[in-house]
Amino acid sequence: MKELLKKMTIEEKLGQLIQIAPFFYIKDLKNELYGPAVDLGLSKEQIYKTGSVLGIGSPEEMIEVQKKYLENNRLGIPLMFMADIVHGYETIFPIPLAIASSWNEELITASARVSAKESITSGIHVTFSPMADLTRDPRWGRVMEGYGEDPYLNYRFSAAATKGYQGKNIKNDGIAACVKHFAAYGLSEAGREYNTVDLSEYQLKQNYLSGYQGAIDAGAKMVMTSFNLFNGIPATMNKHLIKDILREEMKFNGVVISDYNGLRETIIHGISKDNKDAAINCIDATLDIEMVSGTYMTELKSEFENGTLPIKLLDEAVLRILNLKNELGLFEDPFKGVSRVEHDKIVLSKSHLDYAKKAADESIVLLENKNNVLPLKENQKVFLIGPNAHERNLNGAWSWHGKRDVNENLFDLLSKKNLVHNIDAADVVVYFGGEKFNESGEAKSKTDINFNFGQLEEIKKLSAYGKPIITVVASGRPLILTDVAKHSDAVIQAWFLGTKAAESISDVIYGNVNPSGKLTMTFPRSIGQVPIYYNALNTGRPKNNYDNEYTSVYIDSPNTPLYPFGYGLSYSKFVYGEIKLNKEVMRENEKIVVEINVSNDSSRAGFETIQLYIRDIFAKVSRPLKELKKYQKVWFEANETKTISFEITESDLVYYDSNLKQRIDEGDFIVYVGPSSDNVKENIFKYSGRTKEIWLSLIHKLV
Amino acid sequence: MKELLKKMTIEEKLGQLIQIAPFFYIKDLKNELYGPAVDLGLSKEQIYKTGSVLGIGSPEEMIEVQKKYLENNRLGIPLMFMADIVHGYETIFPIPLAIASSWNEELITASARVSAKESITSGIHVTFSPMADLTRDPRWGRVMEGYGEDPYLNYRFSAAATKGYQGKNIKNDGIAACVKHFAAYGLSEAGREYNTVDLSEYQLKQNYLSGYQGAIDAGAKMVMTSFNLFNGIPATMNKHLIKDILREEMKFNGVVISDYNGLRETIIHGISKDNKDAAINCIDATLDIEMVSGTYMTELKSEFENGTLPIKLLDEAVLRILNLKNELGLFEDPFKGVSRVEHDKIVLSKSHLDYAKKAADESIVLLENKNNVLPLKENQKVFLIGPNAHERNLNGAWSWHGKRDVNENLFDLLSKKNLVHNIDAADVVVYFGGEKFNESGEAKSKTDINFNFGQLEEIKKLSAYGKPIITVVASGRPLILTDVAKHSDAVIQAWFLGTKAAESISDVIYGNVNPSGKLTMTFPRSIGQVPIYYNALNTGRPKNNYDNEYTSVYIDSPNTPLYPFGYGLSYSKFVYGEIKLNKEVMRENEKIVVEINVSNDSSRAGFETIQLYIRDIFAKVSRPLKELKKYQKVWFEANETKTISFEITESDLVYYDSNLKQRIDEGDFIVYVGPSSDNVKENIFKYSGRTKEIWLSLIHKLV
Repeated sequence: MKELLKKMTIEEKLGQLIQIAPFFYIKDLKNELYGPAVDLGLSKEQIYKTGSVLGIGSPEEMIEVQKKYLENNRLGIPLMFMADIVHGYETIFPIPLAIASSWNEELITASARVSAKESITSGIHVTFSPMADLTRDPRWGRVMEGYGEDPYLNYRFSAAATKGYQGKNIKNDGIAACVKHFAAYGLSEAGREYNTVDLSEYQLKQNYLSGYQGAIDAGAKMVMTSFNLFNGIPATMNKHLIKDILREEMKFNGVVISDYNGLRETIIHGISKDNKDAAINCIDATLDIEMVSGTYMTELKSEFENGTLPIKLLDEAVLRILNLKNELGLFEDPFKGVSRVEHDKIVLSKSHLDYAKKAADESIVLLENKNNVLPLKENQKVFLIGPNAHERNLNGAWSWHGKRDVNENLFDLLSKKNLVHNIDAADVVVYFGGEKFNESGEAKSKTDINFNFGQLEEIKKLSAYGKPIITVVASGRPLILTDVAKHSDAVIQAWFLGTKAAESISDVIYGNVNPSGKLTMTFPRSIGQVPIYYNALNTGRPKNNYDNEYTSVYIDSPNTPLYPFGYGLSYSKFVYGEIKLNKEVMRENEKIVVEINVSNDSSRAGFETIQLYIRDIFAKVSRPLKELKKYQKVWFEANETKTISFEITESDLVYYDSNLKQRIDEGDFIVYVGPSSDNVKENIFKYSGRTKEIWLSLIHKLV
Repeated sequence: MKELLKKMTIEEKLGQLIQIAPFFYIKDLKNELYGPAVDLGLSKEQIYKTGSVLGIGSPEEMIEVQKKYLENNRLGIPLMFMADIVHGYETIFPIPLAIASSWNEELITASARVSAKESITSGIHVTFSPMADLTRDPRWGRVMEGYGEDPYLNYRFSAAATKGYQGKNIKNDGIAACVKHFAAYGLSEAGREYNTVDLSEYQLKQNYLSGYQGAIDAGAKMVMTSFNLFNGIPATMNKHLIKDILREEMKFNGVVISDYNGLRETIIHGISKDNKDAAINCIDATLDIEMVSGTYMTELKSEFENGTLPIKLLDEAVLRILNLKNELGLFEDPFKGVSRVEHDKIVLSKSHLDYAKKAADESIVLLENKNNVLPLKENQKVFLIGPNAHERNLNGAWSWHGKRDVNENLFDLLSKKNLVHNIDAADVVVYFGGEKFNESGEAKSKTDINFNFGQLEEIKKLSAYGKPIITVVASGRPLILTDVAKHSDAVIQAWFLGTKAAESISDVIYGNVNPSGKLTMTFPRSIGQVPIYYNALNTGRPKNNYDNEYTSVYIDSPNTPLYPFGYGLSYSKFVYGEIKLNKEVMRENEKIVVEINVSNDSSRAGFETIQLYIRDIFAKVSRPLKELKKYQKVWFEANETKTISFEITESDLVYYDSNLKQRIDEGDFIVYVGPSSDNVKENIFKYSGRTKEIWLSLIHKLV
């Protein structure tokens, strides 16, 4: 690639750094320009130097664009095609917040693998996924696109998705993962999309970087910057964030791209004076590609020609992009994998749909099941109602290629059972409500995240009939279900589960699938509790059992959420024994083995996700009451008991101090194991190794 | 004092650093211990070395304690008496958030002066006031104790209160102001009392330190640390915060005290290992006094004796305390000002009550006045109802010495007018609701800040009678008044106004007082908008007039609040002209004169608070859409026009960049002037001076 770089003109180099829409190569420019592209200001010659495009509709379109491009590109450097393939191409998987509830990394990897395989047949090379933004505010519409509130799970799941997209050999059959949005976009103030963010660098490193690091450690080729500020400067041009933290500390050596029009938005933020200033700020921060604008091209040519900017800055960026194209195999085959025949063969194929079904099965979280009203028996008469009962679009946001007409709806499926059409005849009522598919996702922030008021009123009316009510909740975020839970006998959190949503919901209702999902984001009792998350700090005045009003409480609400992190019911009954440790003291470079017996005290086989948390009692900074450090999702046959074993190593004890150094200290640690963050057994051990500093990626090691 | 210091033993020195309750000197220790005092572990000898006490009941009690103490103290160093005199001693003034609405610094100074004069007669030397915590979250119960969301007003009002407490000559008739809670306690997460705080140091310096700096620049003798963390470390032991920022950067050279039991709570935070560790951490951070515990005394004697800790650390702390006692005049007269005769003469005296009335008058904010339903005429028949109609305790929290039996209630006052006892007979309904006095204040955090639901239902029912409804809202925080405003013809925000609350409310209702208060904290439409404040940033995608859903908005609510910062109606009608600037370009060391004509287009005289905001369009960090820089509260006769003139100087253009340096840049600035932050005229000027760094206290200069 260095040889190729030497042959390139400055304009050709700058071209690699910009990204436009693919229709520039297909149709008449003047009639098709829209949005920020209006003022791109690129000549036809410059368009044919562009490095990448955003979005593509079909194999034919890709082939046409790439062909035309290569005919006009002097050095024959292929275009790179990028797209938002977030939870499936046409085979739609559960939204990320849902699949996170499966706590099944293999499934996340498999879903990304399926997405990659389908995407490649349309000639897609890069997906803007995973989103690794740690989220604590359900008002933000994009919580649906992430994995929830836990740094460890964000690390693991981002890594798992990245492995799936990129495959074992990216050149062969992988697409590049572009992890986003760097950094801390999940903290958008007041949950409002594109809003400002403020946090300390200590908090950033302790909690918010972990998800991105997971993808990077798994080899993610790209990182997308976020729209928000860090220390008052937009991430897109934040040199400290991109260069010092991402490239140096986090050891990322790939391509950094802005979010949509992010480069020019530094002007709107009030920090860049004009396009030239914005381009200089961003290239200096080592932002490699600007999404859907040509500012680098139009503004920086003279700067590099007259030496105002060092050519090294440009060359390094271009080399990163060329290397990526090379790693993707585009120089060998610019049409890698694109094929209508292959597309029609594998898209929505049986095996892909089977994966989607399995993912949907494991993403469902059973929140309430009073008197074991679920599962229903086939002969029970069911009255089905609610705004989602006939809805086929349970794909959720970010599923552009998803087709809803291939999906079942719950009504049609239950019609094959014992459905009745009025309540008097029914043994049980199933109410399928919650959000519509377009109520969450990007630019879908809400101030009111209560379960829809009208729907709640319907449920209350139905409850007057004295029949058990099963409420199924579709949503892209934690909704406030306090009153729903009160008036329902069972509550099924069904998220947006994708192509196989209705089948999985039906299977859970009838017990063909034993629900096993566990929440990865806390469900508050009310919006007034937000932000609320399990890995909170103790404070100096924690709520206690004494009658002291001067503790950290509300006068009108408990501190606890409605449903905590890690929570989810099963049709099986799991009983936890006591925690055994193989030693009381852990010395330097040693491990501690944690054992616990878990029994399925029921006649129903099922999964249980056993969670291990620790608490570092004294440290250089205040440490969380609980931090998830390990988990195992285990299959139990009916009445089976298993001994579950975890290893705690030094890297599980590492944390950031206020000097931004990672360290491990001597002292006592509590170990908790249980089925949920609020329901645990505990034990204690002492770490007696040296106090020492340790490097970042030890915190979360990939298996 | 240095001579005195030389005579002191280590134990005597340590004694100055601890604070206990005064009853230790009066009653039998064993029967009276409570709370954290239980394990004080101090001997009788040590008790008589203690430097200060917290809380005192009367002149007699103070005299008894001081006398007994001096009889037993080897060197005759007097005790210092501290107390929470937050908005009055017995003459209770409006809560700080209310008096802030007066935008009247002289009134704030006068109220503090009255508080000081009354307190001194009981022998109080230090008050834990003002609270300068910038607040953006009305869930937090202590918003009532602060001045709201604006850094400039926090600076000005903290300074004004400090001047009032300390007087022109503190030795003569002043009490020391202890500004609290250092730092950023107003950011308590999720509005929950004593909860954790996270923010960048950049944010801290730009917005949160200003209020404390105001008190310090006005000469405040003491600073109290907050319960919260900064960068993971409790403020009480945060050396960076206390030493680097407070003492060095902010030039504070006085006494730093912890909040109640704050030193020991560093253990509960999980950072100090035990009492000794806590004491070492805090003394090392230069925390001078620990409130209500004796840990320094019990733990540090040996450390200083054996040289583990440098004696310099102790001597500097003791010297600061002795200097304060000296400045207060306690060495000349340990009983300074304490007098039953003087107490009975001035407490609740006519002149003090007149100040309280004036403060209450100017603190009321008229939020709605549809069809000019207010003021009422004396002959209109009024039906008065609501839970606060008969309430005498409108003092609000933090008014320990306040007596409610000296207060009027609204019912008795309106009974002297034309009160009727049913609605059919009434011309108009006055509903007096809102919070009870004990629903806000310390440890009164709420998840639900809606106007009381039952009261709202009552108002809705009353509206069926077709009579105009005047709703008067008592509260210690911004409540959600969206529905109240819908169902009321007028809404009067009456806060907790103190001793003269009912008189002032009555006078506003009948027009004897023309309301003039302006909000200093935003009133949201719903809890889901929190935090919401006027000086927000533009973001990269501000809401605009184009039909673009990808902007920073909610899908279910406007971004705007119900009532913005600076808002408040009058019975007069003020009309603003256009802004005139004396020049378009401001050069180095120059000023710009801003002029605007304001007319009272009504036959009613009244106050108007004219507000000047600026916006720095481009800077090194994203700058707020508006920042309050100046204001004038001006009296207008009926139909009077005045030309209002402001000067903008370089110091008004200074801000913090992300390297934590203060700077001023070349470029364009918008000037806004208007009656509220959302209702302004504008003009523009250019600053063409050198880009340069400037020192902190220039940002807000005291007049």
